[in-house]
Amino acid sequence: MAAAPATAPARALVSSSSSPSRGVNFRSGTSHLNLRAAAASASAPGWRRRDPAVSVAAGSAQSALGALAVYPKVDTLLDSVKWDSKGLAVAIAQNVDTGAILMQGFANKEALAKTISTKKATFFSRSRSSLWTKGETSMNFINVHDIFLDCDRDSIIYLGKPDGPTCHTGAETCYYTSLYDALQGSKPNEDRQVTTTLYSLEDTISRRQEEVTEGSGKPSWTKKLLLDNQLLCSKIREEAGELIQTLLENEDRSRTASEMADLLYHAMVLLRVKDVKMEEVLEVLRKRFSQSGIEEKASRNKS
Amino acid sequence: MAAAPATAPARALVSSSSSPSRGVNFRSGTSHLNLRAAAASASAPGWRRRDPAVSVAAGSAQSALGALAVYPKVDTLLDSVKWDSKGLAVAIAQNVDTGAILMQGFANKEALAKTISTKKATFFSRSRSSLWTKGETSMNFINVHDIFLDCDRDSIIYLGKPDGPTCHTGAETCYYTSLYDALQGSKPNEDRQVTTTLYSLEDTISRRQEEVTEGSGKPSWTKKLLLDNQLLCSKIREEAGELIQTLLENEDRSRTASEMADLLYHAMVLLRVKDVKMEEVLEVLRKRFSQSGIEEKASRNKS
Repeated sequence: MAAAPATAPARALVSSSSSPSRGVNFRSGTSHLNLRAAAASASAPGWRRRDPAVSVAAGSAQSALGALAVYPKVDTLLDSVKWDSKGLAVAIAQNVDTGAILMQGFANKEALAKTISTKKATFFSRSRSSLWTKGETSMNFINVHDIFLDCDRDSIIYLGKPDGPTCHTGAETCYYTSLYDALQGSKPNEDRQVTTTLYSLEDTISRRQEEVTEGSGKPSWTKKLLLDNQLLCSKIREEAGELIQTLLENEDRSRTASEMADLLYHAMVLLRVKDVKMEEVLEVLRKRFSQSGIEEKASRNKS
Repeated sequence: MAAAPATAPARALVSSSSSPSRGVNFRSGTSHLNLRAAAASASAPGWRRRDPAVSVAAGSAQSALGALAVYPKVDTLLDSVKWDSKGLAVAIAQNVDTGAILMQGFANKEALAKTISTKKATFFSRSRSSLWTKGETSMNFINVHDIFLDCDRDSIIYLGKPDGPTCHTGAETCYYTSLYDALQGSKPNEDRQVTTTLYSLEDTISRRQEEVTEGSGKPSWTKKLLLDNQLLCSKIREEAGELIQTLLENEDRSRTASEMADLLYHAMVLLRVKDVKMEEVLEVLRKRFSQSGIEEKASRNKS
């Protein structure tokens, strides 16, 4: 299906100056400190900034692929991917903040080159035999912060932030058909997204709030908390105190995990009352680190 | 490569009684409450338990595929997957607690059937033209809690808990080659895993602790906290208070997100001091929900 893609785009790659993405990695240290913030402030005390050799052509009208700056090693890199007999590799888009797998498609060399340069997740459409940038129709781009290859170099993760729902159905991700649900006769339901633990908990708390509003369902501790701000606040204080106690009184580390779970759960009920998503909290953390660092902020505020 | 797989395994699927996996979903409510806990306690007040039609053949010596219980709809389900011309679909294994993408392979009908029945992530090895259960050599199985299909029904997520590192190199996941790092000349480094925001933050805090031990790196707020338990505890109390204040004083929701970020960061520094991983905290939350529910526990403790 996919012919061997042209290599020309690989020779001149540029980061679009209009790209809203900020490639960020919080790791630090001699061997793997990375703060990749293509257009972020240069001052990041305590963090080594690693600009991925991108020159930003401010105001350039040229397309990303035809523009100025060059990654000298990009040809070698693109050739090192183990493209299959059709010139393709699996490409998975993952939400940088929540970890949600948004969609999976295929990339050819040109699609990967375009993703590296534009920082918009781009795939090769096997049905249309052409490049396809997710969002080019819906405007729900996936703004790529980092790209990973697996150990076999034939599978790619586009780690990024979606501008909106990824699925063409309007669902947040394309994965909303649970096989075990289907085996029980349930029809696919876009509200029944694949979710990992933290977001399953968040969904449960949301559901409890809906039940409170509707007056449905059984009594539960979550509902009690949702209905009583004073109780909720006193519980958060109490759980914070119990977490602290595990440190000050040198309690077993399993106690720490348990108390942190309590604190997290109760704090997430407060988030629900205030209509704040955990994804927003993580975005705050990510942006702080990518700008001046939470450490610096905290230090400024307190010292 | 892959011949059309035998359909026999699809006709008699059973959940192994020895499977340690617990399929859990925290969602609730009329339309999509799910608590899938194949062998968990039947009493889950406030949660509807959805056993995926599995009869557990306790003490049975029969193999999972040859055993007793039957999903009557499994043939239809397996036939509804859009297998490619080789009878394959992409299968992605994801950590149920952290959201980390562990590995990506391919499944044929038989591999998917075996995964449904054994709850161990199973793939079709294209190089060996045979089924391959991840962990059959290393014993690092991926214990599957749920399985999702995408909107096109040609891409599968195995949502599960790994028993140990997934990559054959011993790395936690197979994705440790950052393309932007590679473009700057960095060699792949198994410590440089693909990580989403929460785990990038956790890594950064760990790195700060290593620097404290080594006496290297610049001064930072995180290091100050790591070295002063009293300061750390007073900060956690303070941040919990500030989060609460956003509710009691009806502050803007952006304040709530910001204060929650502060609380989470400081609490994660305490986790680091106590050598507790966020993944352990999430596991506690998941297990509580899959047993009697955090709500019930909290209610029991307090009322």
